[in-house]
Amino acid sequence: MQVLVYGAGQLAQMMYLDGAALGIDVRAVDVNSNTVVHPVSKARLDGTIAQAIDWADALTVEFEHVPEDLLEQAEASGKLLPGMASVLIGADRVREKQLLSRLDIPNCPYQIVTNVDQLPDCVQQLGERLIIKASRDGYDGYGQWRLNKAEELPQLQQQLAGLDLEKVPLVVEKMLNFDRELSLIGARSRNGEVMVYPLAENLHHQGQLHVSVAPATASNEALTARAQEIFTRLVEGMDYVGVLAVELFQCGETLLVNELAPRVHNSGHWTQAGAHTSQFENHLRAVLGLSLGATGNIGGDAAVSAMVNIIGCDDHQLALLSIPGVHLNWYGKSVRHKRKMGHINVTAESYQALGNKLQRLSGYLSTTHFPCLPDESQRLANIR
Amino acid sequence: MQVLVYGAGQLAQMMYLDGAALGIDVRAVDVNSNTVVHPVSKARLDGTIAQAIDWADALTVEFEHVPEDLLEQAEASGKLLPGMASVLIGADRVREKQLLSRLDIPNCPYQIVTNVDQLPDCVQQLGERLIIKASRDGYDGYGQWRLNKAEELPQLQQQLAGLDLEKVPLVVEKMLNFDRELSLIGARSRNGEVMVYPLAENLHHQGQLHVSVAPATASNEALTARAQEIFTRLVEGMDYVGVLAVELFQCGETLLVNELAPRVHNSGHWTQAGAHTSQFENHLRAVLGLSLGATGNIGGDAAVSAMVNIIGCDDHQLALLSIPGVHLNWYGKSVRHKRKMGHINVTAESYQALGNKLQRLSGYLSTTHFPCLPDESQRLANIR
Repeated sequence: MQVLVYGAGQLAQMMYLDGAALGIDVRAVDVNSNTVVHPVSKARLDGTIAQAIDWADALTVEFEHVPEDLLEQAEASGKLLPGMASVLIGADRVREKQLLSRLDIPNCPYQIVTNVDQLPDCVQQLGERLIIKASRDGYDGYGQWRLNKAEELPQLQQQLAGLDLEKVPLVVEKMLNFDRELSLIGARSRNGEVMVYPLAENLHHQGQLHVSVAPATASNEALTARAQEIFTRLVEGMDYVGVLAVELFQCGETLLVNELAPRVHNSGHWTQAGAHTSQFENHLRAVLGLSLGATGNIGGDAAVSAMVNIIGCDDHQLALLSIPGVHLNWYGKSVRHKRKMGHINVTAESYQALGNKLQRLSGYLSTTHFPCLPDESQRLANIR
Repeated sequence: MQVLVYGAGQLAQMMYLDGAALGIDVRAVDVNSNTVVHPVSKARLDGTIAQAIDWADALTVEFEHVPEDLLEQAEASGKLLPGMASVLIGADRVREKQLLSRLDIPNCPYQIVTNVDQLPDCVQQLGERLIIKASRDGYDGYGQWRLNKAEELPQLQQQLAGLDLEKVPLVVEKMLNFDRELSLIGARSRNGEVMVYPLAENLHHQGQLHVSVAPATASNEALTARAQEIFTRLVEGMDYVGVLAVELFQCGETLLVNELAPRVHNSGHWTQAGAHTSQFENHLRAVLGLSLGATGNIGGDAAVSAMVNIIGCDDHQLALLSIPGVHLNWYGKSVRHKRKMGHINVTAESYQALGNKLQRLSGYLSTTHFPCLPDESQRLANIR
């Protein structure tokens, strides 16, 4: 079996590694050079993209910002999973909001803005605390603005004046006082089978994911059932195939969908060490029409996992490998500010044990690059 | 970090896959063509073996029958781990027996035979039930003969008459009524750290490993301690670095060493799914001087694993992937009689659950190629 992935970063690499064990060959399209490359070495492979499309049993993406001409070529083969419409929903906040409305899925109150003159109306409708997001090409905190009070509005309008909002509208959302961010990762296979992983709890810092913990602390059956229901409505409503990541805001007992990612997702990396089947393997299984693998925790109901991102540095001490249940994943990239360099998965038999392991782990990491770890490990260690 | 493996089969492939996640690049030497290849695709890589030796931080082997000129070249670099002497012990039963005697490690009573005329003396010393093994190039049941009664001796002598026993002596062993075969896989790192996995219990059929179960059923602390003591004496006595597999016969309370493999081993494949750190990752860690990873079971003390070899066939139904805790590993080779094509790892929370899963699994496999599975799954399912 053979899969072609658009995008040649760490997600394609991890699909390759899990696929290889199963006898699935994965190749990647480097969308910058329009060449087919090996997902790990990035060495250029023989043949054109068209030939690789013929070679593949399924095509998929590792990120939603694939150039549209490439997506169209992929879609035309009839092998692209998830399909182009689903990928574009992840790439365009307007389409995403329209989908959520169509499927009647709770999300943050919003307005679409195609002219800065519409902003005062947004303040009227949504209040003076707003998050303004470019509808396209905005991810990981880029292309986002905030309004904290109405007086700052003229300043913001000035800042946004240079943008072509007819071409790339803004999605203006009410800034909510949510309790925390969760994400639900799951898969729907070509034959309609749906499976979801336990909810993960995500900790961000300066717009980037730093730590995920799964299953989320203080979750209960009702919360889990609500998230699963949202997931199922989404994948069935989109006729989606593959792994889908649903980012959720929890406000009390309510779950609001913040964002969809039509692909394997950073907040699902914990599944490599903590779940029976990783999100990468399940994505390949889904797009190839194989049975999905079990999504439960390894080690039974009490077992828990964390994922810690390594961002913008490579100064971790390798002695961290001595901590039982700690797994390093390294992407082989050169260091750049805010770049995701790798991640560390940690498994443990309880939150308390997980907190203790994260505390030990933070001893091998710099506080500069892992600012959330001390508090988060403390919080987990105190859960009884 | 970079490792060059002599041998380009599934063991090098699995080292590559586990290494890649850690940012360790693994390349393989195809000892048939004397070229450097990619361990998964087997595509030829640029450069000579000498250049690859320069490139690597450590050299290692995936099998003990590496041609001696290649081994000498590797050893001369000072980077070969385990060293040449250790590799040759695995390749030569006479050296192996001498090592076991030198370190005073219990093993099957034996004689070395360099002339068929010495065989009657073996019968006198060891009894009429004998296993006769070529000292070199004999593995997986090839190059072995049996004597069941003294009357068959002339026939056997005739059969062996054509061999150059001065060059390749025979090791003649007393055929023991052992209870079962166990194996202990463990690692010793460059800095002397030693860690062992739980004992595995191995089921053979026609000279090939078919099923391993770990931890071995009906094992106890005394048995485990004895096996660990043997392991430690071996690796320290050999100044061994890397993963070592020790095959043991259990006769009542006694453990006898049957065979050593100076490498990752088929009976340790269960560690991929069942242990915190796989034997492949720990082998790379050991030869690179990194901390060794935890060798305990994922899922705590009651958790158990099985490994089922796929031999000489590719007719398994992929629907087996739907069984929770079942992991397929496929080597990507063409089918050949008695060839190891892949393996299936199964994890479960108890022997009983493991037996039930193996029973379900055997529904997706042909009895012709998996003859041991029905009885073994029954046996495990009955353990209370």
